[in-house]
Amino acid sequence: MKLYTYFRSTAAYRVRIALNLKGLQADYRYVHLVKDGGQQHQPDYRKVNPQGLVPALEDKGQVLTQSLAIIEYLEEVHPNPPLLPKDSPGRARVRALAQIVACDIHPLNNLRVLKYLEKELATDDAAREQWYHHWVVEGFTALENLLASNPATGEFCHGNTPSLADICLVPQVFNAKRFSVDLSAYPTIQRINSRCLALKAFSDAAPEKQADAQ
Amino acid sequence: MKLYTYFRSTAAYRVRIALNLKGLQADYRYVHLVKDGGQQHQPDYRKVNPQGLVPALEDKGQVLTQSLAIIEYLEEVHPNPPLLPKDSPGRARVRALAQIVACDIHPLNNLRVLKYLEKELATDDAAREQWYHHWVVEGFTALENLLASNPATGEFCHGNTPSLADICLVPQVFNAKRFSVDLSAYPTIQRINSRCLALKAFSDAAPEKQADAQ
Repeated sequence: MKLYTYFRSTAAYRVRIALNLKGLQADYRYVHLVKDGGQQHQPDYRKVNPQGLVPALEDKGQVLTQSLAIIEYLEEVHPNPPLLPKDSPGRARVRALAQIVACDIHPLNNLRVLKYLEKELATDDAAREQWYHHWVVEGFTALENLLASNPATGEFCHGNTPSLADICLVPQVFNAKRFSVDLSAYPTIQRINSRCLALKAFSDAAPEKQADAQ
Repeated sequence: MKLYTYFRSTAAYRVRIALNLKGLQADYRYVHLVKDGGQQHQPDYRKVNPQGLVPALEDKGQVLTQSLAIIEYLEEVHPNPPLLPKDSPGRARVRALAQIVACDIHPLNNLRVLKYLEKELATDDAAREQWYHHWVVEGFTALENLLASNPATGEFCHGNTPSLADICLVPQVFNAKRFSVDLSAYPTIQRINSRCLALKAFSDAAPEKQADAQ
C-alpha cells in the first residue's frame, strides 16, 4: 500500500492513525501542500488523485480517495481490530461523531479555504482567525454535548476502544491548538484526546513525527 | 421513524431519497431553517439534535444525525435494495464520490456559511455567488473526471443501480442550478442526474414536492 500524505493535513493524519491502529504498513509518499505552489496541483499527483487533495491510498492497483472512505475500506478489508462497533445504532453514533468533524468543521478550515478567504475575499489575519475559531467552536460545542451527555461515551468517544470518531477528533484537536483555540469549554474532548495520544498508534501519526515535518 | 427535514436542505434531501429507494415510510417533521430566526435553533429542536442541523432521524428511540451516517444505518438495518456495492473497492469508490459532495462541496455552500459570509465578512451578493460557484466548480470538475474516466460508471454513478453517490449528487445538482451554476462542462453529471430524476424515489424527494415547500 502507498499512502500519499502531508504531515499537517488532518485528513491524512486520520488515515495514518487508522493504519497504525490496524497494524498495517504503508509506503508513505509525501505531497507538500505549500512547496512548489502546492505539489498536489502538479500533473503527476493529479494523475493519482484528479481532485488534487491528500490523502490518497493505493492498494492492489486501485487509488482510494477521501479519508473516511479509505478508513471504511480498511475496516472492511482488515476488520481487526475494529474501528466501528458491531451494533448499527452504535455504528451510526460513531459515524455521526466523525462526520461532525469531517463534514462540519474541517472542510471550512482547511488550507484551500483559508487561502480563498485571503486571496479572493481579501480578509485580514484577524478575520480569518475568527472564521477558523467560529467553526471549531460550533462543532466542538455540539461534540462536547453529545459526548458528555451519552453513557455510551467511555475512555474513548464510544466505549473503551478507539474508533473512527477518535480518529477524526484527535487531528481536529491538534489543528485547533495550532490555531490557538481555547479548549477549556470542552473537558470531555480534552480527556479523550489525551487518552488517545497515550496510544502509540495515535502519537506515531502526529504531524511532528512525520518525515516531511518541517 | 421520524425524519426532521427542511425542503431545501440538500442533506435532508439525501435522506428522503434513501428512504424512498428502500421503500421506507417516515413521519416527516418540518424544521424551517429561515422562519422564526431558524427553527433549528429553538430549544425544542436542540433537544432532538444539539447541533441544530437537519436532518435527524428518530428510530427506535434513538436520534441519528449526519445524513451519511443515517444512510449507512438504513443500509445496515434495511439492506435491500442495497445503496452500496458488495465489493470493498466498489464501496470505497461510491463512498468517495459521495464524500466529494458531502465533505468538499456542500459544507462550504450551505445556509449557515453563506450567512456568515454576509453578516460577519460583509461580502456582497457577487462575492458570495463567486464563492458558491467556486466550490461547486472545483468539486464537479473532479467528479466529472472521476465519473467519465472510469468504466465502473454506468447509467448511474456506479453501475446500473442507484447508490449513495447518486443520492448525494442529485441534491447537489439541484442546489447548483438554484444558484445558476453553468453545468455544460459536466455532461456525465447531467446525464446521471436526469437518469436518477426519472425514478420516482428521486423525484418524490425533490424540494418542490415537499409539504413545507414555499
